[in-house]
Amino acid sequence: MASVHFADRLLAAVEEKKSPLVVGIDPVFESLPPSIREHRMMNDADDSEAAADALYAFGLKIMKIVAPHVPAVKINGAFFERYHWDGVEAYMNLVQEAQALGLLVIGDVKRGDIGNTSLQYAQGNLADAPGIDMNGPDSITISPYMGIDSIQPFLDVAAKENKGLFVLVRTSNKSSADIQEFRNAEGQPLYMHVAALVEKWGAQTIGARGYSAMGAVVGATNGQQLAELRAAMPHAIFLVPGLGAQGGTAQDAAMAFKADKTGAVINASRSIIFAYKDAKYAGLDWEKAVEQSVIETKKQIADALGL
Amino acid sequence: MASVHFADRLLAAVEEKKSPLVVGIDPVFESLPPSIREHRMMNDADDSEAAADALYAFGLKIMKIVAPHVPAVKINGAFFERYHWDGVEAYMNLVQEAQALGLLVIGDVKRGDIGNTSLQYAQGNLADAPGIDMNGPDSITISPYMGIDSIQPFLDVAAKENKGLFVLVRTSNKSSADIQEFRNAEGQPLYMHVAALVEKWGAQTIGARGYSAMGAVVGATNGQQLAELRAAMPHAIFLVPGLGAQGGTAQDAAMAFKADKTGAVINASRSIIFAYKDAKYAGLDWEKAVEQSVIETKKQIADALGL
Repeated sequence: MASVHFADRLLAAVEEKKSPLVVGIDPVFESLPPSIREHRMMNDADDSEAAADALYAFGLKIMKIVAPHVPAVKINGAFFERYHWDGVEAYMNLVQEAQALGLLVIGDVKRGDIGNTSLQYAQGNLADAPGIDMNGPDSITISPYMGIDSIQPFLDVAAKENKGLFVLVRTSNKSSADIQEFRNAEGQPLYMHVAALVEKWGAQTIGARGYSAMGAVVGATNGQQLAELRAAMPHAIFLVPGLGAQGGTAQDAAMAFKADKTGAVINASRSIIFAYKDAKYAGLDWEKAVEQSVIETKKQIADALGL
Repeated sequence: MASVHFADRLLAAVEEKKSPLVVGIDPVFESLPPSIREHRMMNDADDSEAAADALYAFGLKIMKIVAPHVPAVKINGAFFERYHWDGVEAYMNLVQEAQALGLLVIGDVKRGDIGNTSLQYAQGNLADAPGIDMNGPDSITISPYMGIDSIQPFLDVAAKENKGLFVLVRTSNKSSADIQEFRNAEGQPLYMHVAALVEKWGAQTIGARGYSAMGAVVGATNGQQLAELRAAMPHAIFLVPGLGAQGGTAQDAAMAFKADKTGAVINASRSIIFAYKDAKYAGLDWEKAVEQSVIETKKQIADALGL
């Protein structure tokens, strides 16, 4: 169990690494570098254990490369769940390795259910697990659709363990508008309503630096929306996905920060972990391409923020 | 891979068992009957493997008791994820056992992410898995918050494998109103907007009996709302949770059905699986209490529907 409030830990890590860049570990087996795929003893294309083993090996190499440069990694559970329990074990092992490398971990699992059931999710996905001698991620993403009684158990476990949450508020995908831009009589979209709730719910757990353990997932595809959301949630740390492959720019993402340049972390996944596929890095081996990409992305963000 | 459309399979199973009752497998280790708990070799309160083993043993006994009476079970992933990969393996083993007992399985996992990532969830949570020689659940629950591009990958996998989906529309918990009753200028609540989207999205995959492979989770706590939602989603099979422990009555739930008495399944979880805790069943062993409870619940629903 961590002894310091999650928001304070995250801010300190950003300061130490001089960057709010988070690297997203979203490994698709079919996209892994050939050298990782070919070293696995795949019996056939559907060998779950071998595939999970490859995801683990890839994730660990990525983390060793990026650990000197960034404060945190975001590990997306979907890519591991694809391989059932083998994948879940690989995911949990990567969480341990990340923490051993000094990286904070955001478990991107987007869970949520009604109260009694959310408590089970919170225990399994966020809490440390003494029975298997493993730490849970430092934070996870959760869904708001079922309201506060679906979220309170996560808040309770987070408060007890000094862990954090990021609630989906405004996602960066094209069709997020289907639901998130449903508007009330005043023209307010649902995502702004959710933002107000997150600000209210998060007030339960504010750290020494003025940020709540409950942050918000806020897409980077529109700078103006980011600025409105920033104003609506002064106590929330923003997790801004969508940089690089999803189309957001560092200039847009910069709107997620306060004037003091705190208050957000920015995630880039595919543009870093699969950098070897980018013509820009042709001729580099895949590890070198990851390193170059993380350094360049970090610089783009520093330039946009004026760091 | 099933050879018949999910909705047609579910309707046939309801007819064969003469009931739309679904039993929810939501096992909390601390609530398991002492005879199940005490047979496990728990080294300590946090022994994940022993706990997962107990959940499996309990779930299997429940399924053997209820299989002659009901068409389907709903297995909630949260209770298994609490025990990490041991729990996930127990969950998948229960899915196999349920299908061997002739039960359809609803995997209640409430997943959702953006497109590329949702495809991973769909593969891991819904598709059959030849690599581990296991079938996926016949259907799963998913979250609508990120819109159609988060849902389309689930639809694609479901169509390919003759599996089904239930989208969260109106949940039965108290604070569901926080988000789901956000209203537009015409006074329409978000849940009715989501209902219209589910009807539209589900039109991609209609079975021989006129129902889509995309159903809807619709809480049973208000009969009038159920009737409105029934009218808004004529092609969706409703999964109605909340009977028994969550406060819904069979009379309310009956509003989820069409005049021909098709179109919904009704879930009861704790009131059946933990029936031994009910004073009404005092003196019965826990298995007998489960059997009595499932028979009585089935009768309540039949009476409310006029079956």
